Amino acid sequence: MEKPTPPRRVTIVDVAQHAQVSTTAVSKVLRNAYGASPAMRAKVQQAIEELGYRPNASARGMRGQTYTIGVMLPDIRNPFFPEILDGLTEALRDTPYQVLLGPGGCNDAQAEARVTEAMIDRGMDAMVLVAPISSRSRLEHIARSVPTVVVGRHGHSDAYDTVSDDDLTGAALVVGHLVSLGHRRIAHIEHAETDPDRLAEMPNAIRAEGYKRAMQAHGLGDEIDIVSTTYTQEGGYAGAQQLLARSQRPTAIFAGADVVALGVLEAVAEAGVSVPGDLSVAGYDNTTVAALGPVSLTSVDQAGHHIGAETARLLLDRIRDRERPSAQVRLSPTLVTRRTTAPPPS
Amino acid sequence: MEKPTPPRRVTIVDVAQHAQVSTTAVSKVLRNAYGASPAMRAKVQQAIEELGYRPNASARGMRGQTYTIGVMLPDIRNPFFPEILDGLTEALRDTPYQVLLGPGGCNDAQAEARVTEAMIDRGMDAMVLVAPISSRSRLEHIARSVPTVVVGRHGHSDAYDTVSDDDLTGAALVVGHLVSLGHRRIAHIEHAETDPDRLAEMPNAIRAEGYKRAMQAHGLGDEIDIVSTTYTQEGGYAGAQQLLARSQRPTAIFAGADVVALGVLEAVAEAGVSVPGDLSVAGYDNTTVAALGPVSLTSVDQAGHHIGAETARLLLDRIRDRERPSAQVRLSPTLVTRRTTAPPPS
Repeated sequence: MEKPTPPRRVTIVDVAQHAQVSTTAVSKVLRNAYGASPAMRAKVQQAIEELGYRPNASARGMRGQTYTIGVMLPDIRNPFFPEILDGLTEALRDTPYQVLLGPGGCNDAQAEARVTEAMIDRGMDAMVLVAPISSRSRLEHIARSVPTVVVGRHGHSDAYDTVSDDDLTGAALVVGHLVSLGHRRIAHIEHAETDPDRLAEMPNAIRAEGYKRAMQAHGLGDEIDIVSTTYTQEGGYAGAQQLLARSQRPTAIFAGADVVALGVLEAVAEAGVSVPGDLSVAGYDNTTVAALGPVSLTSVDQAGHHIGAETARLLLDRIRDRERPSAQVRLSPTLVTRRTTAPPPS
Repeated sequence: MEKPTPPRRVTIVDVAQHAQVSTTAVSKVLRNAYGASPAMRAKVQQAIEELGYRPNASARGMRGQTYTIGVMLPDIRNPFFPEILDGLTEALRDTPYQVLLGPGGCNDAQAEARVTEAMIDRGMDAMVLVAPISSRSRLEHIARSVPTVVVGRHGHSDAYDTVSDDDLTGAALVVGHLVSLGHRRIAHIEHAETDPDRLAEMPNAIRAEGYKRAMQAHGLGDEIDIVSTTYTQEGGYAGAQQLLARSQRPTAIFAGADVVALGVLEAVAEAGVSVPGDLSVAGYDNTTVAALGPVSLTSVDQAGHHIGAETARLLLDRIRDRERPSAQVRLSPTLVTRRTTAPPPS
């Protein structure tokens, strides 16, 4: 069956006539180019709305712009990512750019490659890669094809911009809080990492490093106890089971992400261990689930909304000027203390 | 700055030569057309993998296929939607189709229209609309442009397929469980709905209707008590606050979705009401958060994974044959009882 003929599309010429401006002016406004005055933008925007004009993305794709931002999310279940996404879409609201999400694969470099290739292939104007695990050279390959902002991952590249949280400080905030409550046996659940690039750049690796440094700074180097699983609820569950099986149990667990802490709370409840009476638990990301009454999880707030807004700023900037030097934005986290942390049992 | 020239792309001709088959055969396999034998598929797939061939989506877009499935999710925070998505992507794994997600707007028809138009504009081969709130005529307009499966929403249309849960039965399971525990004052928090089409078709409206019918069937028509908010955590919080302010409080709250129940648990914890001692709480969707130790929420399982798999089957089928009659798949829910429901206080 052939597609039925669609009604005639409103074109850029119709918009220009309606707004009583030149097609070049309409085009400038659509491209968000410099040299379009606010008054001109307002006129063109009004005509676009009144006529219901939609730029044809396929046709634009052949010319080089689709007004689409591809966002690779490694795990749609991690409740931190919607925070970033909210900040991003809010900052893009008054632009012609539309966000489409590509679900990556949790800890699966092949799945990540597939979805990023698919997004490049579909003509995204820019890409946002959230906590990508691909090699540095692969990220640079992507960034050479299309303006790219890498979120969460540290490290400097001339090819792409980064927005990340100061994860060393975030980990130190958790350890400092637990130490001030009187804890010494503080364990950490990390997301396993062996690749040297990723050990230097991934937020999970840097949180684990921050945990070690903070333990040492507090004279607790001998108490360092790290369990390696994954940043998932299952990873937290498995990690807590290992820690609860220790002959000397920790009195506090610092989970590297809220989603991990949720798994810890699950395992701990099953084992009949009371939180925070027998065991304190802290997470990282300050997600809405952490704030939830029955959960009430102490967690590090890395300002996901702000991360998303900074990401939008950088990518619009990079679309306008692909030759500008790459930028690294580092945001400072804060600690939100809730009911899951308290002094250790005496 | 011009984009650097990319290395020469692997073409369909290279694949055909490598697999020692005709380009027509390769094309058939890529289109998932009938008449390509399993042996032929295997040969071509192997050549594609060995050469790292990627069909060029932009070029295909102009010819009519981009091998992209657009999924509109109304709310990326609702923990039920990843379940559907998992089932969908798993069922598409061995096909050339890539899923891209368009974040809709929670209860915002304009945002929903914007994202669906954007996805059509970008040449999606098929669309999946999860619990869309748009008018029937708008959904049919979308389905006339591109093969469409509507998920969650009931109602029959010749233009699109639907996959939904039997929400009447789901609501009856919750009420029956609470009645069998001894509850009579069972309240319900619904997602507000006034549009007549949506009252007849949206899962939230049908759950509310199922609640009313089940209460009547149990001789509890006089106890029907519905609070209208939204299917969000905030909606659950606000709804519970209203119910807790009643002179005669309910002894059980049936929240129309797990995300709503989470807000209920939050408000209830703040008010110092104990669950399930003073108040039973049940949700709908059986999300991973419901299963979480500290939450342990009684909930209706509507088999999101199965919904996603059925959706994939229907859309592949519809891409192959756009003229086939539309299909309606209705799945049966089950109840998972956990710690948030118990007999009422005596």
